[in-house]
Amino acid sequence: MTEFRDKRLNLRKKMSNKLHVTLLVIGDEILYGRTTDLNGAWLSKFLFKNGLYFKNMIFVRDQESDIKEALKNALLQSDIVITSGGIGPTLDDKTKKILAEYFDKKIIERDNVASIVDENYRRFGREWIRSLNYYHYFPEDFIAINNPKGLAPGLGFYKNQKLVLAGPGVPREFQAMNEWEFLPIIKKYFQDKFQENQQVVVRTRSIPEEKILWMELSNFGSVSSLPHTIGIDIVVSFTGTTEDQIVILEKIKQIISTTPLEEYVWQYGNDPLPISILNLAKEKQLTFAFAESCTGGLCSSKITDLSGSSEVFYGSVISYDNSVKINELNVLVSTLDKFGAVSLECAKEMALGVKNKIKVDIGISITGIAGPTGGSSEKPIGTVVIGICYGDTLESYRYQFPGDRIRLKERFSDMALYHLLCAIKKY
Amino acid sequence: MTEFRDKRLNLRKKMSNKLHVTLLVIGDEILYGRTTDLNGAWLSKFLFKNGLYFKNMIFVRDQESDIKEALKNALLQSDIVITSGGIGPTLDDKTKKILAEYFDKKIIERDNVASIVDENYRRFGREWIRSLNYYHYFPEDFIAINNPKGLAPGLGFYKNQKLVLAGPGVPREFQAMNEWEFLPIIKKYFQDKFQENQQVVVRTRSIPEEKILWMELSNFGSVSSLPHTIGIDIVVSFTGTTEDQIVILEKIKQIISTTPLEEYVWQYGNDPLPISILNLAKEKQLTFAFAESCTGGLCSSKITDLSGSSEVFYGSVISYDNSVKINELNVLVSTLDKFGAVSLECAKEMALGVKNKIKVDIGISITGIAGPTGGSSEKPIGTVVIGICYGDTLESYRYQFPGDRIRLKERFSDMALYHLLCAIKKY
Repeated sequence: MTEFRDKRLNLRKKMSNKLHVTLLVIGDEILYGRTTDLNGAWLSKFLFKNGLYFKNMIFVRDQESDIKEALKNALLQSDIVITSGGIGPTLDDKTKKILAEYFDKKIIERDNVASIVDENYRRFGREWIRSLNYYHYFPEDFIAINNPKGLAPGLGFYKNQKLVLAGPGVPREFQAMNEWEFLPIIKKYFQDKFQENQQVVVRTRSIPEEKILWMELSNFGSVSSLPHTIGIDIVVSFTGTTEDQIVILEKIKQIISTTPLEEYVWQYGNDPLPISILNLAKEKQLTFAFAESCTGGLCSSKITDLSGSSEVFYGSVISYDNSVKINELNVLVSTLDKFGAVSLECAKEMALGVKNKIKVDIGISITGIAGPTGGSSEKPIGTVVIGICYGDTLESYRYQFPGDRIRLKERFSDMALYHLLCAIKKY
Repeated sequence: MTEFRDKRLNLRKKMSNKLHVTLLVIGDEILYGRTTDLNGAWLSKFLFKNGLYFKNMIFVRDQESDIKEALKNALLQSDIVITSGGIGPTLDDKTKKILAEYFDKKIIERDNVASIVDENYRRFGREWIRSLNYYHYFPEDFIAINNPKGLAPGLGFYKNQKLVLAGPGVPREFQAMNEWEFLPIIKKYFQDKFQENQQVVVRTRSIPEEKILWMELSNFGSVSSLPHTIGIDIVVSFTGTTEDQIVILEKIKQIISTTPLEEYVWQYGNDPLPISILNLAKEKQLTFAFAESCTGGLCSSKITDLSGSSEVFYGSVISYDNSVKINELNVLVSTLDKFGAVSLECAKEMALGVKNKIKVDIGISITGIAGPTGGSSEKPIGTVVIGICYGDTLESYRYQFPGDRIRLKERFSDMALYHLLCAIKKY
């Protein structure tokens, strides 16, 4: 352990001089309430993964004075300023013009930029007509950056140990440019300061706070707990290589296996439930179907968000009305009369019914009360029952969650997916 | 029209001195990639609706120096600075401490704050034990603000024509505090500058840009076009009362009814499709069900996101695998062999099948190719066919959309909902 602690000390020392990044989002759309920002949320994860410190994020309107002021502040505070938006094809395009003025550079016609634009157009199967736009008018001495998923080249400028990188506003283009172009440029200019971050994620359910092993895990890095719909993810973050990560994951598994934490862990690694389900179901060649009542199709929709789901997911019955439960899933009228639709008994019959109907290996049912009406003292809003049927197994489980209708649908569906994953593991 | 133009001129003059607002989001969670910001997106709409100009938005870490610097910049740029986050129960709680220091005020024990906290606890059915936290330690001369959905009071301070309002970070609490508490305070301090904004939204499909009537509509306010999944919303924004809005909506309807724009309009007002569908289906007492293939439950899930959907939505069959199309929806094997699952013929049989099976008034089917695999030159990725069956009507429509799998699922499902709305209108 001593050797390992020494290594951690080195890692910590390395973390203290992380590179600071400011994101400057330029444009009216978000402040006008017309679109929601996706670039900030994406960048926060991307920077973290790559060991960069996301210092702050500034959203400004399409006003020259506002943009210049924000740029000035950002350059005072961070090593790297990434901008998004305003690198379009017109001559007076805001970001390009302002950056050129700010660093006192002329905008000139540049052939090397023209060839990047040529190539971008070619990738989309189109021909670029130079006279129709001004992509190739570009500040002198600036780095012209390829746009892997768009037409407008990005801009880069390095001066006095500060790097400015200007990318597109469209999330798809912004993300690709950061991953494929900006990151190598950052590595090049800040070679000595660059470092990679790693995470080990331990996914748990129903864990009491005191069982998290904060002390033991903090030997490996900074430990945090991240609540998700059906439990808590324990996240251990540290600076290191992917090889370090494999070693640390194994050590963490070893430690957990000797403690009471183990019984709460259901997954190492942060694959979302639908991905874990598809991977394991394909491996074991198992098929499944849902009988969804209160989730109204959300379980099925989450599974079919993934390409290749058709190999193992055949279909579902959405039995919102009791008539569909009776006619399509063979739920007994007497069951509904005696126990109600939200009951352990009804969930079992629904799971069995859909398994037989769709002819799959595993049937999963969800019946509950998502509110805001329909609750009772015995079965309050937030009550859900999950039924599972496979082989000789026919089980059902009742849970109670807090939240509004949309959040409850999220939680109910994730709870059903969790049980599906367990069933595939046990099958 | 002259009278109306005069009024518009007055409105425009009023818009030029709008109140400027900066949002300062305090906390590590978002920049660390742990949560996504919801307050900024919500506030942008809220400010717009209330005639306030959202100048910029700054996200900072939980660092005193960063927060102070951002606050200083914000106060230079805006009339009103709204902060979110950091108003919790501890004595050294960041936002409270920094605001007090910034305006040179002492934090003291205040009885009127204590009674707000008492009341907040009572609302949650709990008793506040004063010795256990520091909610009532509050900067002198600050306004203590009720928290309609939480425990921590908000803070307000007005000086030199600048107003700072500090609210909680939790979106539910932040939103309620803005609507019920901040807005009246803003109205009080800036009475003469306060004004309401209104919008008229005209929702269209397949409209060519030149048909938007930019000129004619700009007589009523600023006109913009907002693309959504299946078409374009034309948005006319203006300063005025709700009475003005009713008048202007009628005038806009009149103008559009005499132009070729009319044939592209499918809705006035910006109700999302599921809401329009539920309202009209309830009014006409019509029930419906989906046969979903490529959307995998998304149509049904969107409908069941709304409370009260069970009155008109009975259930669906998700027929992802062809076996389910054949066995449950009575699609003919010969249809699949001859035309394939993504065909006008198959969509019709699916719609008819689900209408009969779930015993509803309207059956809607969706079959398509969401990718990233499964496309062909004849039926490329993005192809979708929607089938509709009601009364004597049995129709199907083929469309082609761009986008990745998730976006295509969105577009396919909205297209199906659009056809459902049309069917309910015609029924």
